[in-house]
Amino acid sequence: MLTLFHHPMSTGSRYARLILNEYDIEVELIEENSWSRRKEFLALNPAGTLPVLLAEGDVPVAGATVISEYIDETRGALKRSRRLFPEDSLNRAEVRRLVDWFLIKFENEVTRHMARERIFKLHMTAEQGGGAPDSTAIRAARANITQHMKYIDWLTATRNWLAGPTPSYADMAAAASISILDYLGEIKWAEYKAARDWYTRMKSRPSFRPLLSDRVRGLPPSSHYGDLDF
Amino acid sequence: MLTLFHHPMSTGSRYARLILNEYDIEVELIEENSWSRRKEFLALNPAGTLPVLLAEGDVPVAGATVISEYIDETRGALKRSRRLFPEDSLNRAEVRRLVDWFLIKFENEVTRHMARERIFKLHMTAEQGGGAPDSTAIRAARANITQHMKYIDWLTATRNWLAGPTPSYADMAAAASISILDYLGEIKWAEYKAARDWYTRMKSRPSFRPLLSDRVRGLPPSSHYGDLDF
Repeated sequence: MLTLFHHPMSTGSRYARLILNEYDIEVELIEENSWSRRKEFLALNPAGTLPVLLAEGDVPVAGATVISEYIDETRGALKRSRRLFPEDSLNRAEVRRLVDWFLIKFENEVTRHMARERIFKLHMTAEQGGGAPDSTAIRAARANITQHMKYIDWLTATRNWLAGPTPSYADMAAAASISILDYLGEIKWAEYKAARDWYTRMKSRPSFRPLLSDRVRGLPPSSHYGDLDF
Repeated sequence: MLTLFHHPMSTGSRYARLILNEYDIEVELIEENSWSRRKEFLALNPAGTLPVLLAEGDVPVAGATVISEYIDETRGALKRSRRLFPEDSLNRAEVRRLVDWFLIKFENEVTRHMARERIFKLHMTAEQGGGAPDSTAIRAARANITQHMKYIDWLTATRNWLAGPTPSYADMAAAASISILDYLGEIKWAEYKAARDWYTRMKSRPSFRPLLSDRVRGLPPSSHYGDLDF
């Protein structure tokens, strides 16, 4: 069986879990606090980042998109109509562009700061950077949410799924980011009708269910987080 | 012919140019200042980032790794022993891990700050964020160079090329980052013997030559930047 080192509130980890769940790939989950910089974990991934998949022979495959490409190469092609990555190279480029949008751009501008200030700091020691959240960082991240939500809203109003007619890695990446912000109650759903409809469809997928039962110690989710009809 | 929107001092742009040069793919280069947020450019890539390749039919392929995957899928497989991406999935995962290391981690911790503070600000207007460099940001980025150089030094001391026995995308990504810092004279080569030997081999490749003649208006390169035997 494969093993995934992850954290419930890490975007890349959620992205990898969604893909593994979509493909019914059995995986043992090990929760890792990347801020602890545990020696055994750094040996698997010197970058110290999540997620890390232990593939066949326990060879580490480190990084969210590195994992998704690996899963596509070794399993995706066999999934036929359930494959989350198109066959045509230009369509693949569009999926990859959107995955990078959510896992790099949105992450750098919003999610990473929100997760750090509002979640991870609760569990970090003072030496690890824990303590009171930095309200300036939260305000700056919050101000950036709007443009990204408008972009999702526009994409989902013009396409059935984010990158085209069928669900793809792009939907998994976007839903991974959005679900963390939604746990924190940071999304004003009333303003984004098409995005809300898309996210309702994402939440209803069986692959999403395990993420909806994730809980952070000391921080309950927003009231509608687990609600399929919010 | 393909078209590449790039900037001479953008890591991702250098990475794409190296790959295109390695494969002798003819390309028209258009220099773009991403900080101008030009409307026609944003229409090609709403993220506003470089590089962007106009592929067959002028379809935009946006983002450094999105381009390198696209080039591998459409051209790389035909390059046989000159291919810069291995065939085995676990070896591909190792190349991708290292590409992400340089294009995301090293970029976020070092290169992006150095390029912005020391280069781009020279050409930005005050409204675009131009002006005097932020010495705190430069100091923080400079402090992070050492661990990355040590990592390159370790990799190149234990492997012939960064990801294994033959040159790969990983070498192109690392050389793209390092060459920008070397232009700025930020690398203390005397401390990294194996890395220096690797970089000398990279600089000697014909694909590298055009990058060595790049010049930034108002900022000449370090004295050894273009020197193949430095």
